[in-house]
Amino acid sequence: MVGGGQLARMTHQAAIALGQSLHVLAVAPDDGAALVAADVQYGDHTDLTALRTFAKGCDVVTFDHEHVPTGHIRALEAEGVKLFPPADALLHAQDKRVMRERLGELGAPNPAWRPVAEPADLVAFGDERGWPVVLKAARGGYDGRGVWMVDDATQAAELAATLIAGGTPLIVEERVALRRELAVQVARSPFGQVAAYPVVETVQRDGICVEVLAPAPGLPEELAVAAQQLAIDLATALGVVGLLAVELFETPAGLVVNELAMRPHNSGHWTIEGARTSQFEQHLRAVLDYPMGDTSLTAPVVVMANVLGGEPGGISIDERLHHLFAAEPGAKVHLYGKQVRPGRKIGHVTVLGDDLDDVRARAARAARWLQEGHE
Amino acid sequence: MVGGGQLARMTHQAAIALGQSLHVLAVAPDDGAALVAADVQYGDHTDLTALRTFAKGCDVVTFDHEHVPTGHIRALEAEGVKLFPPADALLHAQDKRVMRERLGELGAPNPAWRPVAEPADLVAFGDERGWPVVLKAARGGYDGRGVWMVDDATQAAELAATLIAGGTPLIVEERVALRRELAVQVARSPFGQVAAYPVVETVQRDGICVEVLAPAPGLPEELAVAAQQLAIDLATALGVVGLLAVELFETPAGLVVNELAMRPHNSGHWTIEGARTSQFEQHLRAVLDYPMGDTSLTAPVVVMANVLGGEPGGISIDERLHHLFAAEPGAKVHLYGKQVRPGRKIGHVTVLGDDLDDVRARAARAARWLQEGHE
Repeated sequence: MVGGGQLARMTHQAAIALGQSLHVLAVAPDDGAALVAADVQYGDHTDLTALRTFAKGCDVVTFDHEHVPTGHIRALEAEGVKLFPPADALLHAQDKRVMRERLGELGAPNPAWRPVAEPADLVAFGDERGWPVVLKAARGGYDGRGVWMVDDATQAAELAATLIAGGTPLIVEERVALRRELAVQVARSPFGQVAAYPVVETVQRDGICVEVLAPAPGLPEELAVAAQQLAIDLATALGVVGLLAVELFETPAGLVVNELAMRPHNSGHWTIEGARTSQFEQHLRAVLDYPMGDTSLTAPVVVMANVLGGEPGGISIDERLHHLFAAEPGAKVHLYGKQVRPGRKIGHVTVLGDDLDDVRARAARAARWLQEGHE
Repeated sequence: MVGGGQLARMTHQAAIALGQSLHVLAVAPDDGAALVAADVQYGDHTDLTALRTFAKGCDVVTFDHEHVPTGHIRALEAEGVKLFPPADALLHAQDKRVMRERLGELGAPNPAWRPVAEPADLVAFGDERGWPVVLKAARGGYDGRGVWMVDDATQAAELAATLIAGGTPLIVEERVALRRELAVQVARSPFGQVAAYPVVETVQRDGICVEVLAPAPGLPEELAVAAQQLAIDLATALGVVGLLAVELFETPAGLVVNELAMRPHNSGHWTIEGARTSQFEQHLRAVLDYPMGDTSLTAPVVVMANVLGGEPGGISIDERLHHLFAAEPGAKVHLYGKQVRPGRKIGHVTVLGDDLDDVRARAARAARWLQEGHE
């Protein structure tokens, strides 16, 4: 797996059960996965030579993030390296403009959108569709970075000029009437088998996912099935191998695709205990071309809450764990071994149960207790 | 953790979630845990210098097996190293004579037994109690090794003479009228908190555990509670820190203690998916003095089947996994990365469900499919 973050860390846990040991290309020894995996190579994921050396030791190469240059992936593919998802699929998770165009061709539900080559494109789109609009970097954004809410033409012209001068490729999207955000994950194998997880609700704060509710509360069955079918169709049409997470907006007019990710995803961390097969095992099964695992829920309600880094200092994580484990013997904690920085995802907690309000309150409290400097 | 086998391998998986990385003292690079952990020291667990060096890098030292000499543990304790379970507790899992004596003092249910210093002791015991009897090495046995069924006085005299000449310390036990074997696991922290798992039935073949049924089918509630209470009392009386597995015989006269183990145990592998807290996480919580996790079942019926090595050659494990995953998308596979040897435990499979007969048949079939040379 290229990238040594928490996704590789948790994929390594899943690999161990399958009798494997994840080979990791990490940047630094304190990367989450580098701290725990036996077989780590250090190097930059933008360095083709490092990637080439790394790939030599792998049966199949997959990714912990979307930041490997498409050209490098194509170069390795041309040399016979097996990379999943393949470059032609991954491109749709790397480039929002390519994704929007392809979704349009496939008849999948896009918001109104337009490429922004110069400031006037953005201003024209806002004037036509109404302000505010959502300006996005077509490449490189994550966790709220690379997304700007633009309120009027003046702000638009200024911001777009700055970004374009900086070389950032841009698209603009209408701001949809958002009821809530949903996500659906599917896994697809080279053989073409596809398995979908239940649709979940994701709750964002400041552009960062803070909470995932599985299954999405009160989602009508037909909408859930439609979302799963959409994800299955996209995985198949795009030739995805491995996991595909489809982030969706629920609007009065129906579902709209927000983003695609082709790897284990924060919206699927609940599956470690909450589904019969975790997303990490499923991703490995998919890229290894094993048959897909059972995606059914292990409890009526599963809530995952992200633990964000708080202000450093104060009560140690060790003491925080003591308090949490004493109060919530059934809460499942996952810490990523990361240095704490305010707002950074340093772990997550999953709580299972029968009653949504209860489970949700307990998960949120657990995550808060693990966050430094929360009081 | 001293010892790099599958127990350390699975403990490492659990450590990752707690934000830790298990430091492992392994014998060889192809030990199950050495294949997957980042932080491995090589050395022999009977080498005090190696143990001392190893302990320097640890907050607390625990064990994957019972084979560290008691004297070494005491020496390290005297030097201020924190080892759990402590030598005074672990001794009862290392030496069957010490265990039987202590159980007797505590009023716990022993079979009739006697130390065997010379062949005549064994013959006298058999003549008194009736043949056959069970001769056991007081130290060093596992997985059916170090246990002999002795049919008569002639065989007894000969076998005992050979073993005593070889320096093997011996005890003899009556052969109890065995209905079935049960096991109960508890974890105890230095603070003194104790948590018990549901009682399970263990099914042995040729002295090796092949199957664990959780909870033990048809076990009357009062017997289950008595077994849990017995394990809790023993953990407390012996000063165990970490896991204690109490292996029990169910007889017409009630429960009788067979063996004690003070570490994660084969009879608890079902807990990875079958209990809210796995035995591996629980062992870590105990030795780190965290509050104990929820031990409740995640499904009405959980069956764990061991995968034993078959004759090498034939269909690869990769192809076997394909077949198994296709037929049983919900079966949870754990492979230990070990070289296959006939009869050696190379992995296990866990199946969850509602109907015992169905779940049991599926688990047994899954384990058989993963075993080389089974047809």
